[in-house]
Amino acid sequence: MTRVVAFGGGRGLSAALRALSRLDLDLTAVVTVADDGGSTGDIRATRPVLPPGDLRKALIATAGPDESETARLFSHRFGGQDFLTGHPVGNVVLTGLLELHANPVDALDAAARLLGSRARVLPMACTPLDIEADLFEGDGTRTIVGQHDIAVADGSVKEVRLLPAGATACPEALEAVAAADWHVFGPGSWYTSVIPHLLLPDLREAIGAAHARRIVVLNLSEEKETDGLTLAGHVDTLRRYAEGVRFHYVVSGDTRTLADPGSLNSAAQSLEAQLVAADLAADGVTHDVAALAAVLGNLLVEDGG
Amino acid sequence: MTRVVAFGGGRGLSAALRALSRLDLDLTAVVTVADDGGSTGDIRATRPVLPPGDLRKALIATAGPDESETARLFSHRFGGQDFLTGHPVGNVVLTGLLELHANPVDALDAAARLLGSRARVLPMACTPLDIEADLFEGDGTRTIVGQHDIAVADGSVKEVRLLPAGATACPEALEAVAAADWHVFGPGSWYTSVIPHLLLPDLREAIGAAHARRIVVLNLSEEKETDGLTLAGHVDTLRRYAEGVRFHYVVSGDTRTLADPGSLNSAAQSLEAQLVAADLAADGVTHDVAALAAVLGNLLVEDGG
Repeated sequence: MTRVVAFGGGRGLSAALRALSRLDLDLTAVVTVADDGGSTGDIRATRPVLPPGDLRKALIATAGPDESETARLFSHRFGGQDFLTGHPVGNVVLTGLLELHANPVDALDAAARLLGSRARVLPMACTPLDIEADLFEGDGTRTIVGQHDIAVADGSVKEVRLLPAGATACPEALEAVAAADWHVFGPGSWYTSVIPHLLLPDLREAIGAAHARRIVVLNLSEEKETDGLTLAGHVDTLRRYAEGVRFHYVVSGDTRTLADPGSLNSAAQSLEAQLVAADLAADGVTHDVAALAAVLGNLLVEDGG
Repeated sequence: MTRVVAFGGGRGLSAALRALSRLDLDLTAVVTVADDGGSTGDIRATRPVLPPGDLRKALIATAGPDESETARLFSHRFGGQDFLTGHPVGNVVLTGLLELHANPVDALDAAARLLGSRARVLPMACTPLDIEADLFEGDGTRTIVGQHDIAVADGSVKEVRLLPAGATACPEALEAVAAADWHVFGPGSWYTSVIPHLLLPDLREAIGAAHARRIVVLNLSEEKETDGLTLAGHVDTLRRYAEGVRFHYVVSGDTRTLADPGSLNSAAQSLEAQLVAADLAADGVTHDVAALAAVLGNLLVEDGG
């Protein structure tokens, strides 16, 4: 069975996973562990567990058809005005599992069993990380720490790094990366969900050394952290962090690319990758899962890796 | 398959359910919904859901062998010092399920599926209730409300009632009671976990009208709410609340009953019930599950109902 590893963080990775889950694949998600907003931020503030939010979204996106009720439970966010308010049930469950298992991979495998997941969901690293960014400001830069704060900050990103500096990748993620036939990057928040995988030296090296073919799925909507960055700019930015990593396909679902592929085609060629343009927008903002599955399925079948 | 309904509340009901789950039965637990201590009290304070604590314990006690890890997750009580501290994961999961399902029976059936439960766990009533007690004090009485406060109050109980006064039983519980071959009461906190089932008029009538044979399992250890009440006194108290309900067996696992069954034998006979005395103590305080299963199994097999 074709082995696919999908890299990403929150909602963007969920879109890729929902699409890939429709195909008959041996699927692994490798998820960022720098999530620090909302419920996850509250949990991280006092508990030394992996941030559950992005992991929860990946697990829900791959839940099996018989476990849709459990997926709904994991997604349920408490309303009201008490200690549970704003927390999704799944974040609390994952926190409990992460406390019960010394290896977070065992906790995530247990969660995947509860949800009948059609993918293995692995953390990028086995310990929580943070993202640090230098943002252009006036003639200089300012530095901020934290995925959420970076995502909503004014000013464009000059550079991102991971904290702590010496962090290493989860061994199970390295194994999956090495064994994969395909690597899929994006869609998702470019600096805080897609690029972080390339910021861990051992993970970037494993990606570059793997025989897999690589697909980049570009975003449909603009996000504050990449305000003003064109789709070609997204490709250029990725290339800057992907030293030693070859990409084979750049998928753009934006109808504007179909109309005028010029600059994006050039950017893809600078990666030695082929541009695949299609209309993949469900509502102009999010990917149509069936359409994305069709495009990815064609690439995975036509180019068997 | 022999249909058994076990009535109770917290730890005592769990002991009965662990024993009954070892037998090949069609098992239903009917659980009090007046739990208001600790984590459950915090949740009840702001959320109009059934109190999850006793329901969680019953579900965990009946979890299937392949779901022991999920049972361990449900039991995991958060440590530390934050908003989750002191809450078992299962209470949060049950709260989520109870918010997602209009009928709490659907929520409990969903939880039972997650745990591979060997029993159906039903609430006594579909809405949260409270227990009110009159306690002897000096020459008069004082009245307190709340299962937890009653359980730890000084002074012996004169009478217990349910609030609100017009509460009715859960329809699914009434059906299970009517269809059962056996009803099992106790062990457990006598006034706050065992007797409450007899305080709901329609549930008491359904119990009395059912063709089931009835077993009462007495406690091994003394509890504050029944301080000074002998085992014979427990039987007499139960009889007082069980108008129209016939009992067939009174099981005492206390070795002192084996040595001197006199007064308890008389109390059982006043119920027209037969005393079954055995050594059922695991540690002098809690029931040995295997021994309790053996005694209950013998009764259920020898006296086919």
